[in-house]
This record gives sequence, structure tokens and C-alpha cells, in this order.
Amino acid sequence: MYQINDNYQKLPGSYLFSDIAKKVKAFSDANPDAKIIRLGIGDVTQPLVPAIIDALHGAVDEMAKAETFHGYAPDLGYEFLRNAIAENDYKARGCDIAADEIFVSDGAKSDSGNIQEIFSLDNRIAVCDPVYPVYVDSNVMAGRCGTYDAASQMWSNVIYMPCTRENNFVPEFPKETPDMIYLCLPNNPTGTTITKAQLQEWVDYANKVGAVIIYDGAYEAYISEDDVAHSIYECEGAKTCAIELKSFSKNAGFTGVRLGYTVVPKELKCGNVSLHDMWARRHGTKFNGAPYIVQRAGEAVYSAAGKAQLKDQVGYYMKNAKTIKEGLKDAGYEVYGGVNAPYIWLKTPEKMTSWDFFDYLLEKANVVGTPGCGFGPSGEGYFRLTAFGSYENTVAALERIKAL
Amino acid sequence: MYQINDNYQKLPGSYLFSDIAKKVKAFSDANPDAKIIRLGIGDVTQPLVPAIIDALHGAVDEMAKAETFHGYAPDLGYEFLRNAIAENDYKARGCDIAADEIFVSDGAKSDSGNIQEIFSLDNRIAVCDPVYPVYVDSNVMAGRCGTYDAASQMWSNVIYMPCTRENNFVPEFPKETPDMIYLCLPNNPTGTTITKAQLQEWVDYANKVGAVIIYDGAYEAYISEDDVAHSIYECEGAKTCAIELKSFSKNAGFTGVRLGYTVVPKELKCGNVSLHDMWARRHGTKFNGAPYIVQRAGEAVYSAAGKAQLKDQVGYYMKNAKTIKEGLKDAGYEVYGGVNAPYIWLKTPEKMTSWDFFDYLLEKANVVGTPGCGFGPSGEGYFRLTAFGSYENTVAALERIKAL
Repeated sequence: MYQINDNYQKLPGSYLFSDIAKKVKAFSDANPDAKIIRLGIGDVTQPLVPAIIDALHGAVDEMAKAETFHGYAPDLGYEFLRNAIAENDYKARGCDIAADEIFVSDGAKSDSGNIQEIFSLDNRIAVCDPVYPVYVDSNVMAGRCGTYDAASQMWSNVIYMPCTRENNFVPEFPKETPDMIYLCLPNNPTGTTITKAQLQEWVDYANKVGAVIIYDGAYEAYISEDDVAHSIYECEGAKTCAIELKSFSKNAGFTGVRLGYTVVPKELKCGNVSLHDMWARRHGTKFNGAPYIVQRAGEAVYSAAGKAQLKDQVGYYMKNAKTIKEGLKDAGYEVYGGVNAPYIWLKTPEKMTSWDFFDYLLEKANVVGTPGCGFGPSGEGYFRLTAFGSYENTVAALERIKAL
Repeated sequence: MYQINDNYQKLPGSYLFSDIAKKVKAFSDANPDAKIIRLGIGDVTQPLVPAIIDALHGAVDEMAKAETFHGYAPDLGYEFLRNAIAENDYKARGCDIAADEIFVSDGAKSDSGNIQEIFSLDNRIAVCDPVYPVYVDSNVMAGRCGTYDAASQMWSNVIYMPCTRENNFVPEFPKETPDMIYLCLPNNPTGTTITKAQLQEWVDYANKVGAVIIYDGAYEAYISEDDVAHSIYECEGAKTCAIELKSFSKNAGFTGVRLGYTVVPKELKCGNVSLHDMWARRHGTKFNGAPYIVQRAGEAVYSAAGKAQLKDQVGYYMKNAKTIKEGLKDAGYEVYGGVNAPYIWLKTPEKMTSWDFFDYLLEKANVVGTPGCGFGPSGEGYFRLTAFGSYENTVAALERIKAL
């Protein structure tokens, strides 16, 4: 009789967003006239910009003719896209990353879930707390996390690095030595980040202790401060210790288009074994490339028109972020993030729990956010609002909150 | 110091298609005037049909406006596509599969590589030999296959089910009991299949011994004979033992568009544990949906216009298959497949090895095919040609072969 992967049974229910949906539905049913504004989920709302739409239509037309039809894509992605990425996201920033160190994928969620596969099950992971849940969950499924303690909401074999107002949201080197360190910077959900100098310390630490850094730069486009690195490869020595994951979801609105990439430098080796070769093998065996039309859309992100249009789009969301942050401050809240990221992280007032504050905001202001405890134990007592709504809704939501 | 997944080191180099490419390049360099015809790779060549092109353009236009923009897709796929699949691929054939048992993905290669994750590492797999290499390779990476013996080209912990002319390419129940049985029917690379009655025996066997069948139906659209099942769920009892993988690559030319789906029936349980729930959790944790525009293209596959146009496209490739099969027979070859699949499988003449025949065909006829030994040890002495070229090239290739 076949058996299942028992690690799945260890996972607690993933109830955060379904609990939110249930609570919102119950409230909405009981209050049909309430105009609910959703600033909870990290999904974009603005349409694709014209340069990307044009590229998509153009690529669709190519697929309509035998002479320009495209079948299976090259394993690692089309040259035209990998070159545009290498040129714009790396060489232009002084990072020596070559096109053949870039692996195009269907999105950073897949990559951040799959990357652990090339590592030993004996490795121990370290994660910022709070953080995007995929890092821990994908390692639980693989069997690296030990057992779950419902009281502390912690896994026995995971090293948690709390990021709270007490340490200004800067993770500290853990007491126990990790093998794999997940860093999401700028951070989801806190919207905070660290300076390039602080990131350099992490690179030095990883090289010293023999750890690999999985660096998730999904929110890089929102960085506005000069002393923040746009890529971990701006730090010296990163090519021997870091893998970088990037997404087109938040800089170009591709949440429903699906495109991302992973950089595995050729210098990154475990003994004699090239991690680049391993990821290439994983990619070649279990993935068949991102769609041609989507890769052409990705290329348009780096065109002159695309860059200008997307700068405006990111600016639109960051105006929302400022509206939320300033509005919350005016209303007397303690607020973080929102400067280098589209997320605003607030401390709940009067020691309310994250869920209590969720209920309070829903009932009194008809505004939906995300309870911080859903992102890790250190998120308890915090709350996330996102800048991805429309400007009109964002302004209206803050007026309501200020009026409370 | 972190460690890697050592199972990757066990994999022999994946040299089949790169060896082919190298040999073809060397020949081409030495013979620049030779007009090489490629009937080797299983990639389609005909453009997307108008109904699909129209759907793609329409969906792109929706992404250009805030009111019709689509962000993150539902985890399991859009209702409109899952309903179309349930209706057309299952209910219309008398299979009781509901829309919420269907998981939309970016293609059957991803699904066939990822599906093993929800099973125990202690399970033992059985595969047809020869077969699509992803089944074994993905299990090697996970650590289920034991050690590789280069002489026999076999893994110590894999159960091989030879499919050769001696057993008319019908796999026999193995002597040792497997936990997971991979069946690709119609088969890649042999182009052969089994009857519905024979498939029913496999379903009964799996239910009896407590095995799960991973049923890859990627070539279903090419079935022309009445006694062949289009889905394993046409067999009684399949919902308690089988997962079905389907692709849009070969029926609709989506090799570069990327769309597939997996059916995990709710009745499929290991003890009390629902495999449907497990796959939903895997999907929700490590995947973020297929692109909206691609899912709309998938929907168009099931429209009246789409069905009519794709029937013609499949007919075009099957005319090629017939051309190859009849041509090879006329030339005196022993030929299999090509009736319910776009692959033709020939026995090499005069006990030539697969690679000897590859060289012979390349040098004498300037035609590229695929050595059968690349698909498993029982593929030695066989050779695959595919029907996915243009009709003109296919006819020309066969004229050359007949003239040898």
C-alpha cells in the first residue's frame, strides 16, 4: 500500500486569508449597505501599462503564423529576456551577473517554494519573523522543520529571527548557526528594510559560517532610499553565498501574468558542486519555461516606454502608501514601512491582538486589513495595510480611520 | 556549512537531446549544403488556431483596463476553465469528475514532476520502459530510486515494465508490488496504447494491491480507435486509485503557451487522508496559478470554433503520422504507433543500435529522429519519429528514407 508524505499532516491549516474572507462575508451579509474597502491582500489593481499590452498583442500575433510561432521555450528562458534582465537589473547597478546565471520562471512564489529542493533535508533554515509564509511551509513539506508547537506558533527546527520595533525590524544574527537563511527585503509584511551596509554584514556572516542566503527581492522596485541595495549582488562576496529571487508581480503588475526569475551565480558552490548546475537540472526536469508571450511582456518592462510607464505606476502605489502612513500617524498610530515597500505595518493600539484590531477596523471603519500574527509569532500585535488599492479607496479608508 | 541534495549527484547526465544537437551541428558544419529535416523533438510547429488567438487578444485587452484587469488567479484555476474541462473532457464521456477536482497548472511537465511530492519517500515506483524521462528523474531527485547501474541503465529501486514488440507494447503486472505506477497512454515514445479493457485491469490491480496510478494522458487527442479510453476515469474504480495529468500542448499547440491540469478525485484517499487536499495544499503553497490570458486561451479550446479548428490541426499531424508509418512500411521497416499518437516507433534494421541508426539516418537521408535508448533500456534497438513537422517536410523525409 502506498503511503503519503506525512510532513503535510504537520502543517496547521492555512486559515489566514480564508478566515479573513469568512469574517468579511459574515459582516457584509449582516450589513449589506456597508461599503467595504479592502486593503488586505497584496494584489495589484492597476491595469498593465500600454507598453506591456502592446508587447502581448504583438507576441500573440506571432503565435498565429507558422513562420513566427514559438513552441517550447529554452529551458532557462529566452535570451532576449535574460539579456534585458542582466543589463538593467544587474550590469546597470554594477553587479556582475551574466545572462546565463538568470533562470526565468513563472513567478517568485514557485521559485521560493521550489528552491529548497536542491538542498539537503538535514539543513536548518532561518527566517525573519514575521515573513511571507511560503519559506517555512515549503520546508515543512520537505521535512526540514521538525514539529509544530501551537502555543508558540513555532517549528522546533526553524531558527526565528524576530523583526519588531524593539530591534527596528533589523534581523540579528541568530545564536544557533543556520544553513539556509531566507531574507525578504524590503520585507513582506512589515514594509521595512535594511541598509546596504547591514546587508553586507549578512553576506559576510553567511560566507563565514557557510550558510546560503535565499534573498527574495520581490519589492525592490519600491525602494526609495539611496542607502538600500536593489540587489544582494551589490554586496561584496554575495556571489559565493546568495541566490536571488525576483518577481515581475509588484513592479509591473504581473500577479495574473506570472513571471519571475532566480539568479544562481556560477561561483556559488557547495564543495565542488555547482548550485547553478543543480538548479538548471531542476528547471530542465520539472519546468517547461514561461510562456513566450509572457516573456515578451517581461522584455517590455525594460523598454524605454515600459520603464517610464511603470515608474508612474509604482509612484501611484507609493502615493497610496504615503496616504496610509501619514493618515495613520495623524490618527495617532505607531506606523512602520511604506517608504521602501508598498506595505504599512502598524502597532495595534492599547495592546489589542491582531485579530481584535481586524474586527475593530472592519466593524467601525468597514476597512479590511491583514492581522500581523498571520505572518509569524512576532507579528502578533501588528497589522498590515497595503498600498495596492485605488487612490480614491485609499483616501476614503483613511478618512474613515481618522474619524474613529 | 549547508549541504546539497545528494540525490542530484546520482543522476547521469541528461545528454539525449544535447547529444543529438551536437551530432546534428557537427554534421551540418561538415555538410553545409545538406537540407536537414528534423522529426526528432516532440514540439508542435503549426500556429495557434484563430479561436485561440482571438481569446488571447481579448484577454490581453481585459488586462489593459482597471475594470477588467485580473490579478492573482484562484489557486486551483478559474471556474470558467475548470467548468469547461469538467464538461467536455469528463461529463461528455460519462466520467463523473467535478470542476473542483480539477487543478489547472502551467503544464503537464510541472505536474508530472511535482506530483511525487505528496507521497512518502518510502514508496516504490513502477514505470513503463521506455517512457518519458521526467517520471524517473523527478523521483531520483526526491530520493526514491536507489542507485543507478550504468551497464543496465536501471535504478536499483525502480520497477521497470518493459513495453516491446515481444509483449505488443502492453505492460505486464510486475512481479514486485509497486506503490506508485506511472502510465503514459497513449505512450511517449512508442506511440502505442492499450485498450480500455486492458486499462480496466490496471485499475483493478491498483485497487487490489493498494497502489496509486499516475496517469499521463497528454496524447489523448490523438486517439482514433474506439476501444481506447480517453480518460482513466472511464474505468470503474479509477477514482479510488488514479490521478490523471493532462496537457494542452499537443491537442492545442500550447508547448510555448503552457497550460495543463491534474485531476485528483475527492474519493482518492490514503487511509483517512485526502490526496485532493494534499495537492490543493501543494498548489496553494508553491504555485500561483496559470496566467489569466492563458486560461482564457484554454477555455477557447472548448468553444465550438476552437474544437473544429483543433480537430483539423490534430488531423494535419495525424496525416503526417500516416505518411511516416506507411512510408516506413513501404521501405521495409517494422513500425509501431502512429494510430492513436503522433509518434512512430520503428525497430532498427539489422540489429543496429539506436545511435547507429541515428547516424545512418542523419548521414544518408539528412533526417533527424530520436534514439529509442534515450527513453529507457528497453528502447534500445528502436527509434522515434514524430508527426509534428510540416506535411511538406514529412513527405520529403520519407521520400529520402524510401530512396535509401
